[in-house]
Amino acid sequence: MALHVFDLVGIFVFGITGALVGVRKNLDVFGILVLSLVTGLGGGFLRDVLIGATPPAALQDWRYLVVPVVAGLVTFFLHPRIGRVERLVNIFDAAGLALFCVIGARKALEVGLSPLSAAMLGTISGIGGGVIRDVLSGRVPVVLRSEIYATPAFLGAGIVVLASAFDYDALWVPFAAAVVCFLIRLVAIRRGWNAPLPRTT
Amino acid sequence: MALHVFDLVGIFVFGITGALVGVRKNLDVFGILVLSLVTGLGGGFLRDVLIGATPPAALQDWRYLVVPVVAGLVTFFLHPRIGRVERLVNIFDAAGLALFCVIGARKALEVGLSPLSAAMLGTISGIGGGVIRDVLSGRVPVVLRSEIYATPAFLGAGIVVLASAFDYDALWVPFAAAVVCFLIRLVAIRRGWNAPLPRTT
Amino acid sequence: MALHVFDLVGIFVFGITGALVGVRKNLDVFGILVLSLVTGLGGGFLRDVLIGATPPAALQDWRYLVVPVVAGLVTFFLHPRIGRVERLVNIFDAAGLALFCVIGARKALEVGLSPLSAAMLGTISGIGGGVIRDVLSGRVPVVLRSEIYATPAFLGAGIVVLASAFDYDALWVPFAAAVVCFLIRLVAIRRGWNAPLPRTT
Repeated sequence: MALHVFDLVGIFVFGITGALVGVRKNLDVFGILVLSLVTGLGGGFLRDVLIGATPPAALQDWRYLVVPVVAGLVTFFLHPRIGRVERLVNIFDAAGLALFCVIGARKALEVGLSPLSAAMLGTISGIGGGVIRDVLSGRVPVVLRSEIYATPAFLGAGIVVLASAFDYDALWVPFAAAVVCFLIRLVAIRRGWNAPLPRTT
Repeated sequence: MALHVFDLVGIFVFGITGALVGVRKNLDVFGILVLSLVTGLGGGFLRDVLIGATPPAALQDWRYLVVPVVAGLVTFFLHPRIGRVERLVNIFDAAGLALFCVIGARKALEVGLSPLSAAMLGTISGIGGGVIRDVLSGRVPVVLRSEIYATPAFLGAGIVVLASAFDYDALWVPFAAAVVCFLIRLVAIRRGWNAPLPRTT
Repeated sequence: MALHVFDLVGIFVFGITGALVGVRKNLDVFGILVLSLVTGLGGGFLRDVLIGATPPAALQDWRYLVVPVVAGLVTFFLHPRIGRVERLVNIFDAAGLALFCVIGARKALEVGLSPLSAAMLGTISGIGGGVIRDVLSGRVPVVLRSEIYATPAFLGAGIVVLASAFDYDALWVPFAAAVVCFLIRLVAIRRGWNAPLPRTT
């Protein structure tokens, strides 16, 4: 139940990031809605296809289609004036990352993947939507260029996986995992945390 | 039966668009054939993977491989001189969009998706090949930048879905749906129909 | 058994190419690891999803995750100074192409695809990882721009398919097929073999 809400909220916030990027690229409202839909649903499609859970949840329940459309329309009408767009993208993106890595890990455990693979699938779910958004709109994917990004997703998914390995199934675990991922990512953006660069001569 | 022909014709015209983009990018004949294949088959692969119909039809029937290769070769030898390429891409692309949105919606209904989801899958099938073509060749995807594009596909798929909801299964329905999508898209290109842009200050 | 080793070696060399491209793009170590993972595992994911073998092998066996991470770390610490990166990418990429086209063809035959389709799936497996690497890092995909690339993969896959069609199942067949693909690709790079270009006026 909680997971279902997580999924829809994650789709909503990712949808907002897609729409914001569309606003920034000066797309018209339909282009913005397309970007909102693929960003919101892309990570989940990737996740469901990889575990063979087809058709993806988003194609079996109309709410999954309405949520990113609403996110796109809200953004279209209420988007900020020029200047703060990129920062908003990062914040909403961090929220989506946090929610999707948790759901992805849970779904992977449900279909019987090993702990390491479940953490990996959680990470893929988390970063998938943003990668698709950035590739379609011609940006370098945030997962490659930004401050640490896949790492917090892997940590969030890892917490879920560890708790499950110890048969500890309290309701607060997914919440805590998402919060940990979200906060680490936000601090990383704020402080400009980067991992070491390759040496050059 | 009619659908099968739709599928092959759709692959052919999408294959032509891929090859034309390859010609424009000055790729050699093998690069052109690759682009012809991924553009022709991409949307159907995406559709079949999303509904779990794997391996995709295109990998089970040799005609699905021959058709885009022929499209690529024909284009390679007969492509127009510089200048009219982009316009031809748009026209063939509109035909592919129209055919694929109809087939996608039908296939989605056959596997039991709900009407809204079937219309959505039809739209995804229609726009998929063009998105893959544009991403691979470094163009902004036509679905984002162009005059209304996903909307006619959604309408075409919607007509198929509505007819099926009313148990009306006449042979002319898919034809009419494809024609509606094709004409709206052509008029949109001609007239430069765009949806509203986000306001900026 | 041999195929399993092929798969892991292919993932390793593709992982190296991803990491080298990351080094060249001056990504930090985590960005490099992400690129190493998607390049190493991308082609196999695509292959497994297309034949419906989900979850992909790489998500069911921890070694598949460790191998590209090791490839990425080794490259991060031992990458060459500026200048020879692109050449190294090409050589390792040719090795990955050769290994993956063979494995892809074998897996396709195992799930009962026809010879032509199996050769096609082998080709897709071979070129998939490189396409994903190049699209994510904003390069024109090597399969489009480079000297003949898909053709050697199709030949390598074709040898496997032909041998199987004649029920000839000797252990050296996959090795020979991979070597043929690898050598043709290397000679093509060396000699700058290109297919004919479209005529322009």
